[in-house]
Amino acid sequence: MSPEHSMESPFLVIGAAKSGKSVYAEEIIRRHEPDYVYVATSQILDGEMEQRVRVHRERRKEHWETIECPFELPDTLRTLKGTGRPVLVDCITLWLSNLLCFSPITPEAAVDALCDSVCGADYPLVIVSNEVGAGIVPENALARKFRDLAGATNQRLAQICLSVTMVVAGLPLRLK
Amino acid sequence: MSPEHSMESPFLVIGAAKSGKSVYAEEIIRRHEPDYVYVATSQILDGEMEQRVRVHRERRKEHWETIECPFELPDTLRTLKGTGRPVLVDCITLWLSNLLCFSPITPEAAVDALCDSVCGADYPLVIVSNEVGAGIVPENALARKFRDLAGATNQRLAQICLSVTMVVAGLPLRLK
Amino acid sequence: MSPEHSMESPFLVIGAAKSGKSVYAEEIIRRHEPDYVYVATSQILDGEMEQRVRVHRERRKEHWETIECPFELPDTLRTLKGTGRPVLVDCITLWLSNLLCFSPITPEAAVDALCDSVCGADYPLVIVSNEVGAGIVPENALARKFRDLAGATNQRLAQICLSVTMVVAGLPLRLK
Repeated sequence: MSPEHSMESPFLVIGAAKSGKSVYAEEIIRRHEPDYVYVATSQILDGEMEQRVRVHRERRKEHWETIECPFELPDTLRTLKGTGRPVLVDCITLWLSNLLCFSPITPEAAVDALCDSVCGADYPLVIVSNEVGAGIVPENALARKFRDLAGATNQRLAQICLSVTMVVAGLPLRLK
Repeated sequence: MSPEHSMESPFLVIGAAKSGKSVYAEEIIRRHEPDYVYVATSQILDGEMEQRVRVHRERRKEHWETIECPFELPDTLRTLKGTGRPVLVDCITLWLSNLLCFSPITPEAAVDALCDSVCGADYPLVIVSNEVGAGIVPENALARKFRDLAGATNQRLAQICLSVTMVVAGLPLRLK
Repeated sequence: MSPEHSMESPFLVIGAAKSGKSVYAEEIIRRHEPDYVYVATSQILDGEMEQRVRVHRERRKEHWETIECPFELPDTLRTLKGTGRPVLVDCITLWLSNLLCFSPITPEAAVDALCDSVCGADYPLVIVSNEVGAGIVPENALARKFRDLAGATNQRLAQICLSVTMVVAGLPLRLK
């Protein structure tokens, strides 16, 4: 996997589950000088998630600070202004899922706030998100709501980001 | 989202749920002079669908005539011959779902008739369809049948259309 | 569907269900002289699968030898060395599913062995695999495990293959 194009920030990386999007996003951010900030939106609720997080962490090791941020992503991105440190957000879909399941804030308002923070970012910013809409319509109403929210959010982020790349089997395909 | 390429009709727009494919299809059709025909295949069976349809309608407003067409899509496209009006069909996958669930016609015969009508169209024609096969194999047999039918129909339409574009997060990726 | 690029082996073809990936893979392999070897990983467990296999077989007809290989794929590919015959493997995801459900071997070890065999192949080799990670997270734990395994395997194969193409609605999109 060799990313062929210059990084213009904000940079959105979209891909299916296990498509290699996080590894690609890390390659993009490493074109900048450390130290890097990793904004992790996952909530560790079970052993399966713990294992996923461990694998991601081991890959990063030094030169990285991790901020756990399951809910307050817009605020976190805003407070990073002025630091000049490259920031990787992984990932938007987990954050949306946390909002839908555990937060009293309406996700739509949170997405508005996120877009404001992304537009206002004065540091190199790479954002990872999942494609979740290319399967069969889910039977579960919450899953359908999540799918619509994720798709709409990806569209809004793709509109404000200067670079958008889809990752398939670890290989980048530039969309913008 | 700025469509970079000339419209050659028939034009197929494929994308995941909430990928921005309808908005893109409307951009393509608007390169032609109004008045436009919107062929809606959805059946409004519940409040969730009603809300979706309302959002699509508000975006279109004037210069559009809407034809509700949950089943008779091949006939509708045939009767539009000679009018010279640009036609947007949204979407094929809902139409297939209606056929599978509520119609005595075999879907395969209906798809044959659809392909004949698309080939015979003498007006600018943009067709929207979903990618539904990039998730896990569904446990439900009807969902598997639908998935196979949708994939096979997309392949046939892609073969007879002069332009085929995939939309990801609102961004077009030309396939043909 | 007209494949525009030269075949460099090993060649990976990725696509959704019913995306036309098998037909495309057969087009690629047919640029070589017969006789061809078709390595089928499917297990015929029910009438639905029998029907799928029958359709694939009728398309191939002469100049093809079929090897049924639901489990021993790495060994089979190794024993084909020295024959010089073009080989089509269809598909990796069914093989992984067989391993997960019916085999005592850990899938990870089997994927290591597969990658060794692919790297060592001295004959034209085309490999078909599914994208299964672009839908909603499955509720079923085994389905999630399968999805992760399929995604990780696709990444590894994409890294060692010289050509990688995604197929959407029968149309090829070159990734590598």
